Amino acid sequence: MSDSSSSAGTQLRQTAAVRVFGGWQRTFEHDSSACSCVMRFSVYLPAQSETGPVPVLFWLSGLTCTDENFMTKAGAQRMAAELGIALVAPDTSPRGDQVADDDAYDLGQGAGFYVNATRAPWSEHYRMFDYIDEELPGVLFDSDLPLDPERRGLFGHSMGGHGALVLGLHRPDRYRALSAFAPICSPTRCPWGEKAFGAYLGDDRSAWDAYDATLLLEQVESAPPMLVDQGGDDQFLEEQLHPRLLQEVCARKGHELSYRLQPGYDHSYYFIATFVEDHLRFHAKHLNVER
Amino acid sequence: MSDSSSSAGTQLRQTAAVRVFGGWQRTFEHDSSACSCVMRFSVYLPAQSETGPVPVLFWLSGLTCTDENFMTKAGAQRMAAELGIALVAPDTSPRGDQVADDDAYDLGQGAGFYVNATRAPWSEHYRMFDYIDEELPGVLFDSDLPLDPERRGLFGHSMGGHGALVLGLHRPDRYRALSAFAPICSPTRCPWGEKAFGAYLGDDRSAWDAYDATLLLEQVESAPPMLVDQGGDDQFLEEQLHPRLLQEVCARKGHELSYRLQPGYDHSYYFIATFVEDHLRFHAKHLNVER
Repeated sequence: MSDSSSSAGTQLRQTAAVRVFGGWQRTFEHDSSACSCVMRFSVYLPAQSETGPVPVLFWLSGLTCTDENFMTKAGAQRMAAELGIALVAPDTSPRGDQVADDDAYDLGQGAGFYVNATRAPWSEHYRMFDYIDEELPGVLFDSDLPLDPERRGLFGHSMGGHGALVLGLHRPDRYRALSAFAPICSPTRCPWGEKAFGAYLGDDRSAWDAYDATLLLEQVESAPPMLVDQGGDDQFLEEQLHPRLLQEVCARKGHELSYRLQPGYDHSYYFIATFVEDHLRFHAKHLNVER
Repeated sequence: MSDSSSSAGTQLRQTAAVRVFGGWQRTFEHDSSACSCVMRFSVYLPAQSETGPVPVLFWLSGLTCTDENFMTKAGAQRMAAELGIALVAPDTSPRGDQVADDDAYDLGQGAGFYVNATRAPWSEHYRMFDYIDEELPGVLFDSDLPLDPERRGLFGHSMGGHGALVLGLHRPDRYRALSAFAPICSPTRCPWGEKAFGAYLGDDRSAWDAYDATLLLEQVESAPPMLVDQGGDDQFLEEQLHPRLLQEVCARKGHELSYRLQPGYDHSYYFIATFVEDHLRFHAKHLNVER
């Protein structure tokens, strides 16, 4: 393994490389221009990447997570190895002593909400929408990592499920499919979203709508196929997640959504681990991965 | 789910129950007489346990771990659900403000080494051998948990691999099979073991031998079948683990050992997650679980 992967103008610094399921779990950091700080991300490269570029599935994590949680707890590498798909998990916010923060778990570091903040003190670093939409793909596909930019999928959990749907609907031609576990379906209409959007974007709610998947689905001509799993005993289901709003707009506008309520499951990584194989198979089908 | 499981004289208090892979991840605490403190453990019950007792596979964790690490990081519930095997993961030491501790990661809380300490200040609480050998099985099989005491297996990692081999060789008729990931094969002959055994058991090394799997294998008439996986790039391989001593005694004494060196893998849960399916299938075969 090389210790760094060069790209045009950006240097990826590899901080760890560990063997798992016949492939490599690699961790990188780089100087982010979008977030004006050092950003970290994790990549799982299956063995198939040793002979050519592989499709890549981007994972966006939920509140309090880093780039590590999904890679250590979801057990997704097993199926990614079988299907020959790379996994990329970025961090959930800018980080560092110089980066604005808040004592609450649902604002500041660990809670970027995948938006471009416009209000002080957040606007200096909190530009996670641009980071995931432009900078991270640019860094990855300009590097020597064997990833195929023509075959991309996007998925996530909770705040990251919101991020996956919003970023995916913003680029319907880029991502072959979208999926989410317990996504925040309409952040403009729940306490988590109202708090974060109010802080990052200000009180004018018209600036919020571009970051609300359910509202975006009212407007877009076409959307990638979507799979959403929701735990029936999720403690955040009633107050924060509002999957019925997502179901309703998809049904009315004819967007392709497979929504599955999973009785008894909660909001944790145990829920994700149980159904992550289904999500990888769903994406593999749309990424044209042959089995 | 009931909130508690009664037993003769001991009350299990359930502290969490989460659905995973069609079964239940349950966490309990109880007042331990062996360790003279509250002890915690985690149980995975597959769906098959709803119709009758299931075989049970005990997992012993390594240094710094609690009852949680294996359950959140190994991804073992998927195969346990498929095979209909329960998993039980105890903590790695007594815990609490009143329990002796040390600042080092390899002594004191999180580092019980599965021995009965005889030296102050450790001897008051550090009786993990008796806890795993007698008290925990007693509590489990006296409770209303649907576990079959006639079908037990034992496995573990690093310090817990040492524990699994030692406790299993102590009860060759109890456990149908033993397995380990990167076990400390001869703690009397490595720095981790010398430090811990010296503290817990004193300077007289004759008291150490009963806790050394490689030395026990010299003495026992028969041993359960054993499977051991070892990462080839494990940073602790040369100094601490000594699998060659285990291989040598098993070959010489005719004990059934399948030893697999896995090139490129390290000492982490990524290594465990990669091969845990093989270990569950190995135990299932010996537990007479039909597929």
